[in-house]
Amino acid sequence: MQSERELIERIARLTAVREGVTLGLGDDAAVVAGDPLSVVTQDLLVDGVHFRRGTSSLADIGHKAVAVNLSDLAAMGAVPVAVFIGLGLPVDDPLGADDIDALYAGMESLAAIHGVTIAGGDVTRAPALILAVTAIGHMPAGIAPCRRSTARPGDVVCVTGTLGGAAAGLLLLDQPNLATNIAEADALRDASRRPTPRLQAGQRLAAGEATAMMDCSDGLALDALRLADASQVGMEIDLEAVPLAPGVIAVARAAGRAADLLAATGGDDYELIVTVPAALVDDLAARIDVPLTSVGRVVDGSGLTLLRNGVAVDAPTLGWEHRFD
Amino acid sequence: MQSERELIERIARLTAVREGVTLGLGDDAAVVAGDPLSVVTQDLLVDGVHFRRGTSSLADIGHKAVAVNLSDLAAMGAVPVAVFIGLGLPVDDPLGADDIDALYAGMESLAAIHGVTIAGGDVTRAPALILAVTAIGHMPAGIAPCRRSTARPGDVVCVTGTLGGAAAGLLLLDQPNLATNIAEADALRDASRRPTPRLQAGQRLAAGEATAMMDCSDGLALDALRLADASQVGMEIDLEAVPLAPGVIAVARAAGRAADLLAATGGDDYELIVTVPAALVDDLAARIDVPLTSVGRVVDGSGLTLLRNGVAVDAPTLGWEHRFD
Repeated sequence: MQSERELIERIARLTAVREGVTLGLGDDAAVVAGDPLSVVTQDLLVDGVHFRRGTSSLADIGHKAVAVNLSDLAAMGAVPVAVFIGLGLPVDDPLGADDIDALYAGMESLAAIHGVTIAGGDVTRAPALILAVTAIGHMPAGIAPCRRSTARPGDVVCVTGTLGGAAAGLLLLDQPNLATNIAEADALRDASRRPTPRLQAGQRLAAGEATAMMDCSDGLALDALRLADASQVGMEIDLEAVPLAPGVIAVARAAGRAADLLAATGGDDYELIVTVPAALVDDLAARIDVPLTSVGRVVDGSGLTLLRNGVAVDAPTLGWEHRFD
Repeated sequence: MQSERELIERIARLTAVREGVTLGLGDDAAVVAGDPLSVVTQDLLVDGVHFRRGTSSLADIGHKAVAVNLSDLAAMGAVPVAVFIGLGLPVDDPLGADDIDALYAGMESLAAIHGVTIAGGDVTRAPALILAVTAIGHMPAGIAPCRRSTARPGDVVCVTGTLGGAAAGLLLLDQPNLATNIAEADALRDASRRPTPRLQAGQRLAAGEATAMMDCSDGLALDALRLADASQVGMEIDLEAVPLAPGVIAVARAAGRAADLLAATGGDDYELIVTVPAALVDDLAARIDVPLTSVGRVVDGSGLTLLRNGVAVDAPTLGWEHRFD
């Protein structure tokens, strides 16, 4: 019927924000009143859409299901506390006891790293393997959740870590004969299957003077546009500044793709996009446990401009968006 | 591979409770530290398993998805604040804009009654209509969450409202030619399609001296057994004391079923099962907005005994439980 964005806007119009909710639909996570403030996010992951049992182990799938939710908490600056797992089990291709163990081992190992409890959930029969994950976190005392609607013209646009790794890894998973001699192949495949939520970076950036933040799950270009739209500003991204994961250039060349566009539009990297006053970039970079790279700027106006060495570039797609036509 | 209960026990063994979580897996909802305490529950509802688009409108489906989660909060004594909706949309039988509007109207009308915000969620393609619902509530100051593991021998077992309505309604929905002349047919069908979460009752019972509580979603007999097992006690239920919804006797007769067993094992009623010191039953009953009926007692030992006029009865099934064989 419509795009994911149109659908979410429609749902927002159909619902009202009531007492106890500080921030409702439209950001990486919602904020619920209390001391501390609670930050809550939910994702629904479906076999064949968000992961594939053919190319990901059940431990990988468990890891990714928890990671993508923790990434949403990271994007608000929250400290994760608990996750809830709604598990839909396929009737015609049932999981064995070993499969269940592997799935939860994948979740639990990531949860343990971040002090998170798998605190509840539900199990039911379903037409495919489905993981509904809810994550709840707390804001540190005195720190406001970092929203995506508060970027200001003049801010620098930065990203954590590197981009393109997940997209290059997915190409390698889809085409096993592609670029078989690339040294970084295993790391790239893992970037696709086992993303790392940037929790420390998110907390430090929110506690610093970052003006807006969101996670980069559907591609830098599309998510930067969403951040710009939410903030009612424009944004320019310099493709030559985008930090590429090692091996992305070689995979892109083998696949006949432009490496910078693959990295800027490929999605699934779960790095953070953050807007920062220019004078603070170096200071914030020194506080976080991953690289922070300036990739563009917030401008007056609206929309996103992709630039390659100063020249505007048309991308065939900005990123990954569900359609429901 | 195993029953729902075995699966949940397996998951509990695979996971650890960490800081910030007061109560993890195994109750109606989890409890997260904070002021106020947060109570969190999640359910995954799948077309063909938990509802059927053939016999329920999309407004009914939206209502029920929210209601069953609010019922879990009611069973802890919490005041609901927000729900999160993960929406899986079927690719081969897509919902139109009117369908989306009806689905969210069903959710929002119930949310509005209870001051709840639909605060977030996710939309994705899926092999069937899927609703992953998370509800978060707050405990009133000074009131502890009412668990299912704290019933004591000597307590009276009570239920709110009436039972059997949802099971009788489902029989009418499945067999349109059954008992066509029953005056309560519409009310029974609605009991199945649009359950009422007992929030006021849950809050008052938890604030009173109730010793244990859970909601009755899978049948009084099965859920009473779960409560007894969690509390490491035994339980006796007097079938002749079970309060039957109007019309259940007539539907059961038409279907060739025993009305008392239909009510005690049918499930989907979303009333509360609560254990109470005998001296307090009348006082608690006077504080809540639905009838409270004594239906049995907590005893030393273990297991559940169903009695009909003092004689033990074997039920062919105790209630609704998923199996994953």
